[in-house]
Parts: sequence; C-alpha cells; structure tokens
Amino acid sequence: MKDHPSHLPTYDDMLAAHERIKPYIHRTPVLTSSYLNDLTGAELFFKCENFQKAGAFKVRGASNAVFGLSDEMAARGVATHSSGNHALSLSYAAGRRGIPCHVVMPRTAPQAKKDAVRGYGGMITECEPSTTSREAVFAKVHAATGADFVHPYNDPRVIAGQGTCSRELMEQTGGLDAVIAPIGGGGMISGTCLTLSTLAPDVKIYAAEPEQADDAYRSFKAGHIIADDAPETVADGLKVPLKENTWHFVSHHVTDILTASEDEIIEAMKLTWKRMKIVIEASSAVPLATILKNPEVFRGKRVGVILTGGNVDLDTLPWIK
Amino acid sequence: MKDHPSHLPTYDDMLAAHERIKPYIHRTPVLTSSYLNDLTGAELFFKCENFQKAGAFKVRGASNAVFGLSDEMAARGVATHSSGNHALSLSYAAGRRGIPCHVVMPRTAPQAKKDAVRGYGGMITECEPSTTSREAVFAKVHAATGADFVHPYNDPRVIAGQGTCSRELMEQTGGLDAVIAPIGGGGMISGTCLTLSTLAPDVKIYAAEPEQADDAYRSFKAGHIIADDAPETVADGLKVPLKENTWHFVSHHVTDILTASEDEIIEAMKLTWKRMKIVIEASSAVPLATILKNPEVFRGKRVGVILTGGNVDLDTLPWIK
Repeated sequence: MKDHPSHLPTYDDMLAAHERIKPYIHRTPVLTSSYLNDLTGAELFFKCENFQKAGAFKVRGASNAVFGLSDEMAARGVATHSSGNHALSLSYAAGRRGIPCHVVMPRTAPQAKKDAVRGYGGMITECEPSTTSREAVFAKVHAATGADFVHPYNDPRVIAGQGTCSRELMEQTGGLDAVIAPIGGGGMISGTCLTLSTLAPDVKIYAAEPEQADDAYRSFKAGHIIADDAPETVADGLKVPLKENTWHFVSHHVTDILTASEDEIIEAMKLTWKRMKIVIEASSAVPLATILKNPEVFRGKRVGVILTGGNVDLDTLPWIK
Repeated sequence: MKDHPSHLPTYDDMLAAHERIKPYIHRTPVLTSSYLNDLTGAELFFKCENFQKAGAFKVRGASNAVFGLSDEMAARGVATHSSGNHALSLSYAAGRRGIPCHVVMPRTAPQAKKDAVRGYGGMITECEPSTTSREAVFAKVHAATGADFVHPYNDPRVIAGQGTCSRELMEQTGGLDAVIAPIGGGGMISGTCLTLSTLAPDVKIYAAEPEQADDAYRSFKAGHIIADDAPETVADGLKVPLKENTWHFVSHHVTDILTASEDEIIEAMKLTWKRMKIVIEASSAVPLATILKNPEVFRGKRVGVILTGGNVDLDTLPWIK
C-alpha cells in the first residue's frame, strides 16, 4: 500500500478546493461565548465544524478529493482506511457524487460507527485490529477495485480542502491574532498553515494535543517525526501520527504545540456543552483545555478556535461513569 | 399574593419590547437539518433559544419587565417564584440593570439550579415544596422589599417579550406555513399568538405538550382552564397550568395542541443532540416529538420550531439509566 504521490498543496489549490466543495459543505457559523471570554480573558471565536456535513471538518478534504477526480477515475470509486470521521466524510462525498466508497475498518470498531458509514452509503470491508491486517486487507480492496486512495490527512487534496475552514474563519471574524486547532495526523493544522501563511502570515498558529498522545508535541520539540504505537486518549480522533506532508506544515508554520490531560479535556468538553449548548466531540475540546491551562498565551488576544467535530456516542459520555 | 394587574399586551407592546430588550438578548440563529427534513417530510426551521442569554427564551420577557420599570420602581428590585429558567432569566436581567432580584425557590430544588440563580446575582429565599408555603414566603419577601412581581408567564410584559421571538423567526425565514412551540403556562405560545395574529395571521400555530402534563390540551378541548395538581414529566418546564392571560391567547389563536409521550420526547431530544449537535432541554424536544408523531399535519409545510431552552443537567441525561 502506497500513499497518494506526495507533493505539497499550494494556496491556489486551497482556493480551487473552496470553489469545488462549496455545493457540498456548510459554511459553518462562528459562535462566541461571553462566559468563556470572561473565564479566559481572551476573545474566542469558535468555528463550528461540529455542525458540518457528516458532523466534522473532514468532509472538506474528502469532498475536494472526490469532486476533483476525472469521470474515469471517479467511476472506480474511492477507498480509505479509517474508523472515524474521515470514513463518514468520504462516504458522504462519494454518495453525493454517486460513486462507490470502500472503507476498511477493524471488525472491533463500534457498531454505531459502522452503521453511520453504511448510512452514508459506504461499503465496509472488515480487517483485524492491527496495522498488518489493515494494510493487507486494504491492498486487496485497492487492487480489486482500482479505487482512488484518499488518505485521511497526508493527501495534498485533503490538506487543501481542510484549509478552506480557516479561510472562512478569517472572513467571518474580520481578523484574528491566533488560531488554535487540535492535532492528530495534522490534516486540519496543515490546512490552517497552508491558508494563513499566505492569507494572514502574522496570525499565530497553535496546535493542541492530548498529553497521552503527544507524539506531535515531541516531534515538534525533536525536529523530526516521532510516531507512537497506539496511544490511548478520550480524544479518539487524535491518536494517529504525523506524516511527511503534514510534518512539513507543522515544522514550518506552527508557533507552538500545547497539551492537556484527559481530565482537562473532558472538563473543557463538558464546559462547552454546558455553556455554549453545542455538542462537540472530545477531540474538539482539546484547544479550549489548553487555553484554560495556558491563559497567559491567549489573554487579550482574538483567538479562532476550530471545533473540529460533533460525532459523539451519546450513550457513553466521558464524565458519566 | 396577587398577580400583576391583568391586561392583555398588544402588538405595539411587543414592538416596544423588542426595541427595549435588544441590547440584552441574542438574536438567536435559525438552524436547519436536511436529515430531519427528510425524516419528517417537512421543511423545519429551528429557532435556537437554547443559545439565548441565560440559556432560554425566558430572558426576553424578563428583560422586558426589568427594563420597562421606572427608576423608582426598579430601585426596589424585582421578585418571582420559580425554580426554572424564569428565575435564571430574571436574575440575569436584573443583574444587567444593577437592581436586586428576589427568587423564592423550594428548598428541595436541585443545588445546580440554586447555584445558577446565584451565579447571575439572584437572591434566593427558600420555601417548603408546597403551594401554601411558596405563597406565604413570597408574600413576606414581597412585603419586605416592595419589589415588582414578575410572574413567569401570565404577566403581559412577559408575554410581549416572548412575542419578539417569532418576529425574529419570521424575518429570518422569510415566511412560514406554521409555527410550533412547547406549552406549559403558555407564555411562549401566547407571545407567538400575539405577534403572528397581526404580523402573519395565516400562519398556523401549534402547541406541543407532554401527555403526562396535558392540562393545556384538555383545557383547549373543554373550552376552559383545567389545572392539574403537580404533574410529572421529563419536560420539567411544562408542568405549570395556563392562567387567564395565556388562556386568552391559546383559546383565540391556537390551531391545535398536540401531545407526545415521555419516551417520544426523550427520543426527539436525543435525535436533536445527535443530528443537529445542539444541546436542548427536554421541554424543547416536545414539538419535534409531536411532528414525528403527526407527520401528516406538517408534510410539505414550512414549519418554524421554537427550541425554547438548553439548560440541562449534563450528569443525568434521561436516556442514560
């Protein structure tokens, strides 16, 4: 299995992506909370990708990949391996174009996730919950279908698509001092770097990561990619490691990476639900957790906070034991 | 204890209320969900008063009462009896004006509710959890302070304030076939009737009520007010009975009252959280529950759905046992 040929997306790729995906995505609202502003001493602008189609920002990159394919390529469909929001989003985008979407998922993935992928029309091939099995099964699906592989975050088309989010955020807020987003594989952060390094190069870019899955933080300090083996965190969208394309953006454009503990993430998640009356997943709460932990970094600043998704199992909330 | 002198608010009272309260309330967004449109066959426009200041529409009426007082009256403060959103909202509005707010609450009310009222600056006097005790304690507080009594829903200033919500909804949607809102004491429904009977008299007005607290439904069918003694429902904002002013609007302008079971309300609440990614309280879910139960009434129609509030105890959700 080989990733999509690696090259770095450009600012023009992001602009083209925005035009391409507009019919299929929401221009999500930006919400504010006077309570959270008082609490943090900063002026926070929450970009609500939890309201996005398929419940997460990932639909931006997935739609860009799907709708950028030639008719001939598209006819063979798209394929990916993911048990999370990328699988949902790619299924949604493929469904909108009317082409097949093949998803390799561990057989141990929650039934709710499988149902959601199938609900959007995705076709699931199950693998064992190991990297070896996933790669073997994916190679087989890929060979049998000739489908286009859309990597969840390292694909330049995906990064360009994710970059459309911070373009909207800048338009909607009329300017910011900083933007903060969660970091897992680095797709959203890379798109943010891609867009802001041209559109608003003075804006500081912070990445927020769970302490228990702080491979990006350690990579950033070490100056090279460090990949952890299967870290565990409540922020289950953020377990994956950086890859070469996302590492490029992180290492060149990110101001700093801040981390938060599991308890701090859960507390920030619950506080957002309680005060803003919106449902966000744990991964989306990591930025607010790090802002609350490092108020001196953000005090007096206008800060864009990307709420990356809202796909939560409502039957098992992390603060209810 | 006597209610505020009874008279019916006018359309001009509503317009004046809107001007008066604008600096203190949010013009809340209207959200849509393609999933729920597909599911119901209607086009639903959700007016998100769960995002309102103090977490509920009640702040509209409370602010109208508080900011309509002369300086002399205001100096003595305001008072009410409530253990719910009206208490929060009146405390918030009084706090914004910098005047005292006295709230009589049963000593058995949840600590979270008491903390929230105090968080907005309200001063609580506890009573026993009975009507007799509440009335006696309230009369004492009222006599001692000379504060202006703001009834949670029968007060004409409150009804005029609640009417501002459907004015915004009509502006934001550019026209509707029907509006549906929950009914308890009838403040929101009365305000909706007040506004729409002049602004858009062809719009049908539906009230949605829990089966287990269906006194408004039975009143509507009987042609006179029927008050239940302490009904129990998960939609805890809807337990109170109609009073003379709200009965006037309900009996003259409501098209129909629809009811839903406890399970149907909880299911609609969870569905809203899951699909729309917003936190609404159980009372707010009753309209969607009745739409799902009576699709033939709404199919093909443009329907405004008022989500009345989002104040939920996140530690005890009704679908998690």
